[in-house]
Amino acid sequence: MGSSQSALNFGAGPAKLPSEVLYDVQQEFLSYKNTGMSLIEMSHRSKEYMEINDNAEKAVRELLKVPSNYKILFLQGGGCGTFAAIPLNLMNRTGSADYAVTGTWSAKAAKEAAKYGKYSQNLRDREVFPDESTWTLNPNASYLYYCDNETVDGVEFPKIPNSHDVPLVADMSSIRCYIWRCPKNIGPSGVVVVIVREDLLGNAMKVCPSVLDFTHVAKEKSIHNTPSTFSVYVMEKVLQWIKKNGGVAAMQTQIVPLTIGSEVGLIYHFVGGKNGNESLEAKFVEEAEKLKMYQLKGHRSVGGIRASLYNAITVSDVELLVKFMVEFQKQYGPKP
Amino acid sequence: MGSSQSALNFGAGPAKLPSEVLYDVQQEFLSYKNTGMSLIEMSHRSKEYMEINDNAEKAVRELLKVPSNYKILFLQGGGCGTFAAIPLNLMNRTGSADYAVTGTWSAKAAKEAAKYGKYSQNLRDREVFPDESTWTLNPNASYLYYCDNETVDGVEFPKIPNSHDVPLVADMSSIRCYIWRCPKNIGPSGVVVVIVREDLLGNAMKVCPSVLDFTHVAKEKSIHNTPSTFSVYVMEKVLQWIKKNGGVAAMQTQIVPLTIGSEVGLIYHFVGGKNGNESLEAKFVEEAEKLKMYQLKGHRSVGGIRASLYNAITVSDVELLVKFMVEFQKQYGPKP
Ligand SMILES: Cc1ncc(COP(=O)(O)O)c(C=O)c1O
Ligand SMILES: Cc1ncc(COP(=O)(O)O)c(C=O)c1O
Repeated sequence: MGSSQSALNFGAGPAKLPSEVLYDVQQEFLSYKNTGMSLIEMSHRSKEYMEINDNAEKAVRELLKVPSNYKILFLQGGGCGTFAAIPLNLMNRTGSADYAVTGTWSAKAAKEAAKYGKYSQNLRDREVFPDESTWTLNPNASYLYYCDNETVDGVEFPKIPNSHDVPLVADMSSIRCYIWRCPKNIGPSGVVVVIVREDLLGNAMKVCPSVLDFTHVAKEKSIHNTPSTFSVYVMEKVLQWIKKNGGVAAMQTQIVPLTIGSEVGLIYHFVGGKNGNESLEAKFVEEAEKLKMYQLKGHRSVGGIRASLYNAITVSDVELLVKFMVEFQKQYGPKP
Repeated sequence: MGSSQSALNFGAGPAKLPSEVLYDVQQEFLSYKNTGMSLIEMSHRSKEYMEINDNAEKAVRELLKVPSNYKILFLQGGGCGTFAAIPLNLMNRTGSADYAVTGTWSAKAAKEAAKYGKYSQNLRDREVFPDESTWTLNPNASYLYYCDNETVDGVEFPKIPNSHDVPLVADMSSIRCYIWRCPKNIGPSGVVVVIVREDLLGNAMKVCPSVLDFTHVAKEKSIHNTPSTFSVYVMEKVLQWIKKNGGVAAMQTQIVPLTIGSEVGLIYHFVGGKNGNESLEAKFVEEAEKLKMYQLKGHRSVGGIRASLYNAITVSDVELLVKFMVEFQKQYGPKP
C-alpha cells in the first residue's frame, strides 16, 4: 500500500464525493457556463440557478421514484433544523407523535419535538433492536418517527417499520444513497432534502419560522429565500452522476460490506467501542492518516473507530482499508 | 468598451466576490492543504474546519471591532431564518418589540415577529424617511428593529437610530462591508453572521428550534450541527482579503458613488421605478449582458434596474457601467 494513492475518506458526513463531480465543479468555478461569473456569485433568481434547482428536484424524483403526490423540498438548517421542522409542520393534526428512539439522533429529534407537543418513545434500548411486534404505537399520533441509520450508535433499521395508518417520518440522513431527508453523501453540507406527502401540508403551527414551513417552501419551489446555492449546485451534479452510474440500485450493490465483515468486526472489537483502548485508537487514526485514509475517528460522543462506506467509496478503497486493518491488528492486536 | 473584459456583476445578492479569493478556492478545491480531500468532503469537526470557523470569527471581530461582550455566531437559514430567530431569542424579555418598517425586508421581519408576540410599527412611509424625532418608541419593547439598507426599495438609514435604553437590532445584510447579520458581499449564500450582546442571551422561547437558538449556538461556537462548511470557508477567505486590502474603512471609501450620482439618477428615472417602461428595462438588461454586465434587473417585486456596488466592485467597473448607461440613454432616452 504505497502513499501515492489519493486520499481515502471514510467520514460519516460531510463525506466523500465522486471525483468526477469535484473536478467538474473546479473546472467551471471561475466562469459558470461561460458567463464569466462563478455560480456562487449568481442570484438565486437567475435563470441558471433556477434551472439547477429544477434539475435537482427532477433528479431526486427520478432516482427515488418519488410519486407525484409528494413534494420535494430543499431547506437549510441541517438535520437538526429538520428535527424542529417536522413537529412544527406535522404535529398540529393531533398534537402528539410517536418517536422510535434507537440512538443519539432519534433521541435528539424526540427532544426537539417535546418543545411543540406530546411524544411517546417506543424503543429505549440502544443495543438490541426490539421486534416490531413488541412496539406499542399510539393510533392517534400525528406521525411515527424513526431514524434509518443511527450513525453514532451503529443501529440500522432492518426494514421500513409498519406504522399502520399513521404517517411515517424517516431520517434518512446517512444511508447509502436512498435519501429521505438530509443528504450527506449526495452533496456538501448546507442543504436538506425533505420529501413530504402533499395532503400533510397546510398544517404548520403558528410559531413555525417561515423558512422551515414546508407549505411555504413548497409554494416557492424551494427558492423562498436565498438558498445555499453552492450546496444545491453540487448536489445536483452528484445526482446526475448517480443516474449516469446506474441509479440507486447500482449504489446499493456496488459494495458488499458483508464480504469484509469479519475483519471489520475484529478490529472494531479490539480498538473501538465503549471499552476501547483510546491510545490504540489514536494510533490507528494516526497510522491510517499516514496512508491517506481519513475521518476514521468515531463520533465524539462514543469514541472508537468508524468507517462510513457511502456511494463514492469504491470496492478497492474498502480493500485498502481492510488490508491496513489486518496489518494493524497483526502489529498491535492481542498476540495469539 | 470591448467584450474582452471579464464579466461585471452588479447583483444585490448573491453578489460579486474578489477574484483572488475565487482563484484561491479553485486552486485548492480538489485537495485542501494537501490532504487529498476537498474541503467540502471534510468533517465539520476536523481540525481543518474548526480552524476555519475560528479564524472567521476572529476576522469578523477584528474587522468590525466587535467588543468582547458580544458573541459572533454563524447560522444557516438566511436572512429570513434570522427574521424568526430574532423574536424567538429576544422578544421573551417583555413580550413585545418595536419594528421600524421602512421597506420590504423590515416588513417581512415584522410579520415574522408577529408570530411570537406583539410588535408595533413605527415608520409606514416607504418613500420618505421620517425624522427620528417624530418616532413613537415603546420604552418597554424588548428591542427596536431596523433594516439598514432596504435593497428592494432603495431606502438606506442615514445613521444608526437612537433607541434610548432599548436594545437595537439591525439587519445589515446588504451594506457595503460593514456587516451585522447576513453577509451578502462577504461570502456565498449559506451562512448568516449574528453579532449579539452576551447579556441578551439565555432568553430563548421554548418553541425556538435549537439551530436558531443563539445561546445554544454560542455555547457550541457555531458548530452546533453541520454548518454549510463551504460557505463559511469562502467567507473566511473574503474576510482575510478585506483585512489585507485595508479593512472596513478602505472598503467604505474605495468607491464614491456620488461622483456618478447624476448619471445613475438619470437612468433610474427613465427606465426604472414604478412608472418604468418594462420593454426598455428588458432592452437595458439585454444590452448590458452583451457587454458582460450582469444582474442589473431590479427585485422581482418592484422591477426597474438595480446596480449593487458592493466591496468587490471596483471604480473602473462602475465607470464602465456609467459609460454604458450614458450611451444607452443617448440611443433610447427621451430626445431633447
Ligand atoms: C442520522 C443523522 N441524523 C441527523 C444528523 C444531524 O445532521 P446535521 O448535523 O445536519 O444537523 C446526522 C448527522 O450526522 C445524522 O447522521
Ligand atoms: C436587507 C435584506 N434583508 C434580508 C434579506 C433576506 O435574506 P435571505 O434571502 O438570505 O433570506 C435580504 C435579501 O436580499 C436583504 O437584502
